[in-house]
Amino acid sequence: MAMTAKAGKKTKASKEKFVYFFGDGKADGKSAMKNLLGGKGANLAEMTNLGMPVPAGFTISTDVCTYYYDNNKKYPSQLKQDVLDALKKVEKAMGAGFGDKENPLLVSIRSGARVSMPGMMDTVLNLGLNDVTVKGLTEQTKNERFVYDAYRRFVQMFGDVVLGLKPKGKDEHDPFEVIMDKVKSEKGIKLDLELETEDLKRLVKLYKEEIKNKTGKIFPEDPYEQLWAAIGSVFESWNNERAIAYRRINKIPEIWGTAVNVQSMVFGNMGEDSGTGVAFTRDPATGEKKFYGEYLLDAQGEDVVAGTRTPQPIIQLEKQLKKPYDQLFKIHKELEKHYREMQDMEFTIQKGKLWMLQTRAGKRTGLAAIKIAVDMVDEKLISEEEALQRIEPEQLNQLLRPIFDLDEKRNIIKTGKLLAKGLNAGPGAACGKVVFNAVDAEEWAKRGEKVILVRIETSPEDITGMNAAVGILTARGGMTSHAALVARQMGKVCVAGCGALEINYTTREMKVKDAVIKEGDFISIDGATGEVISGQIKTNPSEILQVLIEKTLEPGQSEMYKLFDKIMKWADKRRRLKIRTNADQGDQALTALAFGAEGIGLCRTEHMFFGEGKIEAMREMILADDEAGRKEALTKLLPIQKKDFTEIFKVMKGHPVTIRTLDPPLHEFLPHQDEEIKKMAEFMNVSVEKIKAKIEYLKEVNPMLGLRGCRLGILYPEITYMQVTAIFQAACEVQKSGIEVKPEIMIPLVGHVNELKQQAGVVRAAAKKVMDEYSEKVKYSVGTMIELPRAALTADEIAEVAEFFSFGTNDLTQTTYGLSRDDAGKFLYYYYEKDILKDDPFQTVDQRGVGQLMEIATKKGRGVRKDLKIGICGEHGGESKSVEFCDRLGLNYVSCSPFRVPIARLAAAQAVVKSKKTKK
Amino acid sequence: MAMTAKAGKKTKASKEKFVYFFGDGKADGKSAMKNLLGGKGANLAEMTNLGMPVPAGFTISTDVCTYYYDNNKKYPSQLKQDVLDALKKVEKAMGAGFGDKENPLLVSIRSGARVSMPGMMDTVLNLGLNDVTVKGLTEQTKNERFVYDAYRRFVQMFGDVVLGLKPKGKDEHDPFEVIMDKVKSEKGIKLDLELETEDLKRLVKLYKEEIKNKTGKIFPEDPYEQLWAAIGSVFESWNNERAIAYRRINKIPEIWGTAVNVQSMVFGNMGEDSGTGVAFTRDPATGEKKFYGEYLLDAQGEDVVAGTRTPQPIIQLEKQLKKPYDQLFKIHKELEKHYREMQDMEFTIQKGKLWMLQTRAGKRTGLAAIKIAVDMVDEKLISEEEALQRIEPEQLNQLLRPIFDLDEKRNIIKTGKLLAKGLNAGPGAACGKVVFNAVDAEEWAKRGEKVILVRIETSPEDITGMNAAVGILTARGGMTSHAALVARQMGKVCVAGCGALEINYTTREMKVKDAVIKEGDFISIDGATGEVISGQIKTNPSEILQVLIEKTLEPGQSEMYKLFDKIMKWADKRRRLKIRTNADQGDQALTALAFGAEGIGLCRTEHMFFGEGKIEAMREMILADDEAGRKEALTKLLPIQKKDFTEIFKVMKGHPVTIRTLDPPLHEFLPHQDEEIKKMAEFMNVSVEKIKAKIEYLKEVNPMLGLRGCRLGILYPEITYMQVTAIFQAACEVQKSGIEVKPEIMIPLVGHVNELKQQAGVVRAAAKKVMDEYSEKVKYSVGTMIELPRAALTADEIAEVAEFFSFGTNDLTQTTYGLSRDDAGKFLYYYYEKDILKDDPFQTVDQRGVGQLMEIATKKGRGVRKDLKIGICGEHGGESKSVEFCDRLGLNYVSCSPFRVPIARLAAAQAVVKSKKTKK
Repeated sequence: MAMTAKAGKKTKASKEKFVYFFGDGKADGKSAMKNLLGGKGANLAEMTNLGMPVPAGFTISTDVCTYYYDNNKKYPSQLKQDVLDALKKVEKAMGAGFGDKENPLLVSIRSGARVSMPGMMDTVLNLGLNDVTVKGLTEQTKNERFVYDAYRRFVQMFGDVVLGLKPKGKDEHDPFEVIMDKVKSEKGIKLDLELETEDLKRLVKLYKEEIKNKTGKIFPEDPYEQLWAAIGSVFESWNNERAIAYRRINKIPEIWGTAVNVQSMVFGNMGEDSGTGVAFTRDPATGEKKFYGEYLLDAQGEDVVAGTRTPQPIIQLEKQLKKPYDQLFKIHKELEKHYREMQDMEFTIQKGKLWMLQTRAGKRTGLAAIKIAVDMVDEKLISEEEALQRIEPEQLNQLLRPIFDLDEKRNIIKTGKLLAKGLNAGPGAACGKVVFNAVDAEEWAKRGEKVILVRIETSPEDITGMNAAVGILTARGGMTSHAALVARQMGKVCVAGCGALEINYTTREMKVKDAVIKEGDFISIDGATGEVISGQIKTNPSEILQVLIEKTLEPGQSEMYKLFDKIMKWADKRRRLKIRTNADQGDQALTALAFGAEGIGLCRTEHMFFGEGKIEAMREMILADDEAGRKEALTKLLPIQKKDFTEIFKVMKGHPVTIRTLDPPLHEFLPHQDEEIKKMAEFMNVSVEKIKAKIEYLKEVNPMLGLRGCRLGILYPEITYMQVTAIFQAACEVQKSGIEVKPEIMIPLVGHVNELKQQAGVVRAAAKKVMDEYSEKVKYSVGTMIELPRAALTADEIAEVAEFFSFGTNDLTQTTYGLSRDDAGKFLYYYYEKDILKDDPFQTVDQRGVGQLMEIATKKGRGVRKDLKIGICGEHGGESKSVEFCDRLGLNYVSCSPFRVPIARLAAAQAVVKSKKTKK
Repeated sequence: MAMTAKAGKKTKASKEKFVYFFGDGKADGKSAMKNLLGGKGANLAEMTNLGMPVPAGFTISTDVCTYYYDNNKKYPSQLKQDVLDALKKVEKAMGAGFGDKENPLLVSIRSGARVSMPGMMDTVLNLGLNDVTVKGLTEQTKNERFVYDAYRRFVQMFGDVVLGLKPKGKDEHDPFEVIMDKVKSEKGIKLDLELETEDLKRLVKLYKEEIKNKTGKIFPEDPYEQLWAAIGSVFESWNNERAIAYRRINKIPEIWGTAVNVQSMVFGNMGEDSGTGVAFTRDPATGEKKFYGEYLLDAQGEDVVAGTRTPQPIIQLEKQLKKPYDQLFKIHKELEKHYREMQDMEFTIQKGKLWMLQTRAGKRTGLAAIKIAVDMVDEKLISEEEALQRIEPEQLNQLLRPIFDLDEKRNIIKTGKLLAKGLNAGPGAACGKVVFNAVDAEEWAKRGEKVILVRIETSPEDITGMNAAVGILTARGGMTSHAALVARQMGKVCVAGCGALEINYTTREMKVKDAVIKEGDFISIDGATGEVISGQIKTNPSEILQVLIEKTLEPGQSEMYKLFDKIMKWADKRRRLKIRTNADQGDQALTALAFGAEGIGLCRTEHMFFGEGKIEAMREMILADDEAGRKEALTKLLPIQKKDFTEIFKVMKGHPVTIRTLDPPLHEFLPHQDEEIKKMAEFMNVSVEKIKAKIEYLKEVNPMLGLRGCRLGILYPEITYMQVTAIFQAACEVQKSGIEVKPEIMIPLVGHVNELKQQAGVVRAAAKKVMDEYSEKVKYSVGTMIELPRAALTADEIAEVAEFFSFGTNDLTQTTYGLSRDDAGKFLYYYYEKDILKDDPFQTVDQRGVGQLMEIATKKGRGVRKDLKIGICGEHGGESKSVEFCDRLGLNYVSCSPFRVPIARLAAAQAVVKSKKTKK
């Protein structure tokens, strides 16, 4: 029995196909077989089948790579024969013989993974040359210099790549380059081109000696030995350090493996009737539909990349080599039509004959992605749904932000003005004078200066200053630090966590290495790249903002806006999730509405307390010794809150507005520096000691897990009562004025249903009292944040009381992971480096852990209250992978900062399209 | 149809029995009907059925109370008739008529809940008296003074209780007492006894006038009106403030309701042939089997309670009233035999006739509980399993601790020396001189002083000082604060969170109100009650400790030990859970073993770094600038750790020892006061600035969620490597010496399986290296704490790597609830007050939330690894309700501080017995 089973397995293995031939107009593979053949191999097969001129070759599948690593670096036993068989076909197709004395076939050996990993793995060209075939090839080409140049390149490449002589550190030198330099200096020449045939012959000899010296091995003259060694080295390179690092950064699973492509060599450096180049079916920068690319005559691919000679625009080729140009032009049209996607192609012309070496989907900018997608729909090449899938939601961000004038930025960086790089926390470009505190930011802005607020880290006290600044730069904090969160919500440019800055508040300057930037000096920060640059760079505003927010452009005047608008309309037609925004001021709400928000998912009430004439009343409330004192101070806060709510209700015109009751710990409202404390004491006519004592009393070991959220409202129900009174006074008045209002009162940080019960009681009592006073009936609901594991786990109990849930995934992530957002920056980077975490859980919902709690909560909540409305208002609500997860979970809406609303709209539509696909 | 249904319901309601008669040797109820009749009513019925002399009466069931509150304070319609019918039977049994002119029946109206709520609800006595019946009763008793005394008491009680004239605050006076005082002062007398009949008659008149003045109502002369008003007031009193507060504290559900007992009055104050008293079937303080109690002749129950006359020991009664004494003696034997439990009885003798008024299970001390349980097994009254159920596990604690000499304590408190009360965080009694820091504690202790370490709060730096002190007193922190946790683990007396203390480290004194306690002054702290007393009180050591630990007594010499030992043996025979201990020093481990621990469930490695010559190396490690520097410092720490592990392995002799790698944030090892920083800088020969900079760098916003646990080991694998090296060097050497070792390496704060994978890799590498060096093979396992929600939720992934789980329920509670243990004290008290939380989640496992995660983790973990060993090492591991939960969950063991091991053993046995019962 055991024998049979084993035999059976063997039989199966022997049937497996490991080698895929292409050439002579027909190929074993096709483009759909990317996983097996890698991107390059699959597309070479496809082009061959399309009848395009592809040098014949074969692909060794990724299965062999997997087998290789699973079986102690051995190949499947059948591989040898399969490769030889395929090689025979290649010889036939190209009319040349591998190792043939007279008409030798040369091949290239290239890696080819499922997705492109440019430059990460090994390549060997001109393989098949040796002291014998070199003569045959000379005979064939009648160009001895060309052949020996190819030979010396091959020996060097083989030595470097296959035999491992490539320098490892930047202090090492390539031994072959050392020899080359020596030979050149002996001859007194500088350029490789100046080498004569005899020099090249000498180089080949010297190179082979060097190989023997360095490795103890003799350079293999046998082409088959060369071939197998090169194949092995490509498979080995799948696990070189660079490749591993690249995979980690780009989240490519190790298990995918690479294919190996063995392909006949063609040469673009055989004279002025030869050449090589790259072409795109559309402009990858703008998306414009035009034949785009560049080429070099009498050159090899590496010459185009090296940049030693300036390539020509592709249209020039028509004048120089009309026939291959025409053929290439025809092929580019065919390829785009065939793939229904913008193509990036590589070609070589050898003695007037065009050869296609690669085609693949071209990389492009955000703008180009949108333009191409929209154009292709217009051209009926793809459907609207396909167009939606072709745009990375994050790319929309690029369209909304002012950007630096690229040339100016490039020039200024060239002069050494790049100070440091931080996290790209709030996209866009900003340039202004440095200030180091919020008060200065406000004052300077009032007198018309553009300022960048630079802080070690920001706190709610800095809000008004952040609002006054054009950009925010911090030394500490991650992508979801206070600075980053608020900046994104405000739509401000922000570079956060720029650890290289040494900020000194006292001397009002910051040091970066040797540079010292003082208050008032200009800096420019690029929120898309995290760059911090000293000096001024011109910025250009986004046309879409000019249309939607600033109204300085008519929709019809902006091509970019028209594209954006089309995409958004297609997205809105398909998405199931509603999109709300996190906003707590009228202007933010207006912006969000312009971007298509359908309600406010999180209106933080605490931000309303900051600013002149507001913070004082709040501080009075906190300093009060008893309930009576608190109530007195609260009566001062009431009109402040009411004014803000009135404005928001008016702006939102009947869209739902979810208002969260006071959440942050009280100490966040108190000053912490002696000078400020003194000022406050004088203003409030209390002793400095009293304020310091209160600050001391409110200090907490772990404020994130302390007296905040509903715990505040439970200890001081009068705060909740005041807030709800303000909300309903505003609601009643706005509703009386004929504008619909839909307030949803949300209680934060609930862990036990009894907490919610108690607060819901206060809310309903206050609401009833106000509505009775106004003789007005306002429809409202009371719900809760689900932001603690216990709330998710007991969602069935909580849903008995809560009329809606909103996932606060920021805090839920902190508690589920036991990870402080403010402190994680110090060590989380190391987790990514060591491959312990793949994604930042504060950016993308951790589906396995946090997501599991969300699923539990959704299931338990809806089990009790079938139509329970559930949303998400953490930062994740504007991140595309998280939006897709929320759609799958069946949430009703996602809520994100105003500037991310378009991103969420698109992501929500993609989620629907994707799930339809999965269901098929 | 609807009509029929309604009618049907009515029929059912009319069949329901609401009133239960007892008297004349037969009763409708029985003792098993406690839920329906309340404890008092059920036992009155039972005694009646046993043929004991019980004054006839009836019980209105708790269902009526529930109905009353569910139906807008209305009674079931049939109740009126049922009560009248029952009253008729009572009249017949007692041969008297309710409201009868000549032979009037008087009744008492008393509450009676399922469990006793002493003094919380209302009682009315002597009901049925009015201006007419008073005359008949006088005729009957031939004692006018007695009758009018009863009458004036009734009018006062009715006015106070039923009509609501009872004073509400302590500043108010009882209006009837005011009148009484006036009358007495007019007559120039002091005692009530000096009042003459005419005075009493005048008082009745004045009282009735007062009622009219204060309430506008006329005192009801109709006995039936009196009866219904009194019944209503008892039901009302179920929801008075005191009752609500009592229910909250004692966790009695509101839904239970109270019964109302209406019972014929008997009088103990009808002369020297009458009396009243309380008796127990065994001594409630010592458990000794003897007829115990006290009585007063010619007195009512309230006189015994009031303490104005000193009651006599019950045996005296035999000489004074032989017949009723003999009857009572017989009854006490019968009752204990019948109930198979120690009884607490109330009785009254009226003119030589004994009447039984109450019997119930008697409250007792821990010692008594154990003695009674053991004795009753010996007497074959109850089974071993019943005996186990009769002891509160927490009561064992009382047996292990030194206790104050009670008389001495009582006397010293009488002189006003009770300073304040804090939390009873570490049971026992301690007396010593006050010191305010750990260094002093050590020094003073070295020279032979007993010291109490007084700190605002403690930190790991204080460990050695805590160890040197006989008791610990803190001003801040809850039952699971650092001080409380460590004190319990060390078995030290501890009073924590005593907020009334104003501690001043600089002046080395503390103030409490007006008192000032200076360094060196004596204080006494009672860890069982939380009392802090100034001055010295003698303590008596626990006999059990003398036997088990100090070995100053032979087992046979201590009765107390013999009892303890029996209970423990019975428990061990039945429990399924293994009991381990949390210990990190050899002496702690020895103590735990003596108490029956079967292994170490948590050996914290960080405590080993504190103390002279240890902390310096740790600080050097922390201050190191790079890996090389850290490694150098770590080589100094290695022998320190190795020594500790060697000792532990030797003590534990083959019992498993779970060792946790470094857990706390590094800043806990650094000094924080200028002076200490300076000392450290000098010692280490680095600048003060460098140390301060490091302290600043290590500061975290939320240290609980920061760089700690396995995160440290991941960032600095060399730390884990050193610790594991020390463990395995110790293990190899001890094993070579012939003693078995079973190390289990536990990785803390794992949230993602990759964290564990990385650390497990380091552990296995270090272990292998050491074992190879020693040519020794040590069996060990690598597991993890489950102390983050994410770990529980992804336990299936984690179990692929972890060979065991241990629930760290302290941190799991913090993260699941989003609640900092260090900060919660400020507001959690309010949660209990407002009934938002019932239990302290840091004491008793929150089964709904945290427990749900434990269940998920257990299920998922064992789903992957069937025999996964799972334990708990949080503080909850020694709390009886939590132990029961762990048993139900199927854990393998619980681990707790050494002194709680006996508690856990008993609780684990109780869990088994209880679950057997449930299954039946």
